[in-house]
Amino acid sequence: MGKYKSFDKAIAMMFLENSTRTKFSFELAAKRLGLHVLNFDASKSSFAKSETFVDTLHNLYFIGISAVVVRSGDNGLLERTRAQLKYPIKLVDAGEGTTSHPSQALLDYETMLDKMGTVAGKKIVIAGDIKHSRVAKSNVKLLKQFGADIHLCAPPGLDYDIDATWHSRLIDAIKGADVVMMLRMQYERHAQAGETCDLSDDFRLTSEKLEKYAPNAILMHPGPVNRDMEISSELLDSPKGVTILEQAQNGTVVRMAILQEALLC
Amino acid sequence: MGKYKSFDKAIAMMFLENSTRTKFSFELAAKRLGLHVLNFDASKSSFAKSETFVDTLHNLYFIGISAVVVRSGDNGLLERTRAQLKYPIKLVDAGEGTTSHPSQALLDYETMLDKMGTVAGKKIVIAGDIKHSRVAKSNVKLLKQFGADIHLCAPPGLDYDIDATWHSRLIDAIKGADVVMMLRMQYERHAQAGETCDLSDDFRLTSEKLEKYAPNAILMHPGPVNRDMEISSELLDSPKGVTILEQAQNGTVVRMAILQEALLC
Amino acid sequence: MGKYKSFDKAIAMMFLENSTRTKFSFELAAKRLGLHVLNFDASKSSFAKSETFVDTLHNLYFIGISAVVVRSGDNGLLERTRAQLKYPIKLVDAGEGTTSHPSQALLDYETMLDKMGTVAGKKIVIAGDIKHSRVAKSNVKLLKQFGADIHLCAPPGLDYDIDATWHSRLIDAIKGADVVMMLRMQYERHAQAGETCDLSDDFRLTSEKLEKYAPNAILMHPGPVNRDMEISSELLDSPKGVTILEQAQNGTVVRMAILQEALLC
Repeated sequence: MGKYKSFDKAIAMMFLENSTRTKFSFELAAKRLGLHVLNFDASKSSFAKSETFVDTLHNLYFIGISAVVVRSGDNGLLERTRAQLKYPIKLVDAGEGTTSHPSQALLDYETMLDKMGTVAGKKIVIAGDIKHSRVAKSNVKLLKQFGADIHLCAPPGLDYDIDATWHSRLIDAIKGADVVMMLRMQYERHAQAGETCDLSDDFRLTSEKLEKYAPNAILMHPGPVNRDMEISSELLDSPKGVTILEQAQNGTVVRMAILQEALLC
Repeated sequence: MGKYKSFDKAIAMMFLENSTRTKFSFELAAKRLGLHVLNFDASKSSFAKSETFVDTLHNLYFIGISAVVVRSGDNGLLERTRAQLKYPIKLVDAGEGTTSHPSQALLDYETMLDKMGTVAGKKIVIAGDIKHSRVAKSNVKLLKQFGADIHLCAPPGLDYDIDATWHSRLIDAIKGADVVMMLRMQYERHAQAGETCDLSDDFRLTSEKLEKYAPNAILMHPGPVNRDMEISSELLDSPKGVTILEQAQNGTVVRMAILQEALLC
Repeated sequence: MGKYKSFDKAIAMMFLENSTRTKFSFELAAKRLGLHVLNFDASKSSFAKSETFVDTLHNLYFIGISAVVVRSGDNGLLERTRAQLKYPIKLVDAGEGTTSHPSQALLDYETMLDKMGTVAGKKIVIAGDIKHSRVAKSNVKLLKQFGADIHLCAPPGLDYDIDATWHSRLIDAIKGADVVMMLRMQYERHAQAGETCDLSDDFRLTSEKLEKYAPNAILMHPGPVNRDMEISSELLDSPKGVTILEQAQNGTVVRMAILQEALLC
């Protein structure tokens, strides 16, 4: 590519699943770094003409795209794809299937550092639809490396094979917690799987429960929130709920760092 | 938000109804001002995951978006939403339901000032589908403040409760007018309401009528025009029709001023 | 437009048919030149409110758009439209119907110059679905001007009335060729026309055929490739296949030159 090396760098946004927070913060992060940003609409692209994903990526690289920020529902897509790439186009994981969302884990970690300075030895509870949550899986993986004490809790049928301390009752899980991270019920994935999972009151976090069992805990949620489903509106609108917005705020700078590292170093 | 205060400002475009002129001129206005512009696609956002509008806006604010330019079909959406916002994200009205389109009124006013220097005491006729026209309502509100003499005319069933001089015949309305602003028949809203309103010749403006009854009038239309419906093609293509394009031209600079005032002062 | 002459220039992308390579390379080309880029979504524009194409373009010009990059399925659209335009908005052809794709022909020509220095007297074979290929038609037109020796080959029913040396068998066509340009089978257009054209092995290019009949030929394809349809995967993934990516690479700079010439000279 030496012939055209001196141009400004560009990235493509390829969001094959819905997103607001992640897409906007990656896009804004890129623009703040002075990158050109091109939005890829799969329904209007050569995907619709049966081009393979790898061929599309090779073409994007030669066109002048240095990285593609990808969100997809396909577990393992990026790993399988990276193994087939012949050119050094970067694939940035913006959430993949039910297993991987590393940029979210990094922004969550950054938020915890802001509040507590460290996660080592801290009791961090992740509760809700863990089965479908890529956020939970990436967070557990990252937080364990830094010595966090992970506690998990899911409604029946929404648990997952993760090595951590499991609780069947939310109030048991959150006792004395330093962080309580609630997860969105992912009804759209349940519908695909033919599941129906309505949350009972037992799995809904309220100010009363939090005050009683974990009064000093930091409240987190990756968003979007289903109000009065996994978390009560009054808790969300209380001062405790602000951390959830601070997560979104950290998302933009953490993604600037990710793109900086991937593209500009 | 002090932590990240020094970054360039960004806006989001949230167009929940069709638009060309308004969307493009707001987007170009923002880019000329050096703002980052992010396009929000409701069908691919967390709206599709049931997030409330206010929660989405709070998240956008924390992500780093200073203002959202909103077009929607929902009368009163912005006023209701502003009352619920806890953070100072700006909502810019790019046309709302059948009642409000302030940036259009401002660009129309700017166009009239270009041509006449003032609207005080001028006979300004607005004619056509007034019932569904947010343009008409915002124009009447603004022009009255500057002393314009407002005359309105609508086909049967397309009038609306506005305090002004009403005429049932177009030729009566335009007699001696300084400005004749024709409105688009909004068939897509009629269809929703189960209405069928075909325009008779009486309500169609032609060069002949304009020459006979208001030879010195400035011809305006907010666009898009239904050719040979509310206005004849020959009139639109005559020198008189150019003002309609000048309205579009003023749209971009007026929207630069709006964004400048909202974001950069 | 003198009033607002000093602003940065802007273009609109109006892609009414699917595209990846062409859209991304035009968009990136424009951004590298410092142009503002606005994406036009026909389904969300005033097209949906019945505005004519010419009226939309006039409005875009007055809004501040200097050029529109258009892809459409409508043969002759740009020529018919240019004849009706009253204002100097530039229309840039990004692929039109089955007849015209000049920016592709220019990037293909640039690729041939990179490899051979000239096309004069060179045997250039274009093979595949010539009937539906705007790439073939624009290439033939351009390459003939520079003295190329054009040979064409299409499966039964996919030929077209072009003055060149025609072959009914691929292996006859490619004998001693300097360039072999394979074309994508455009199934989506066959479907519209009620045609069914499956390629027999005879029309599929393989390494074996190329090695045997045209060992020194440059292999080209406008993309996207239907792997193992018009071209075998093993040939595509061999060193010969790299030129196809270099075509994409040249696309961005050739489109920078096109936009530079159209807008900035």
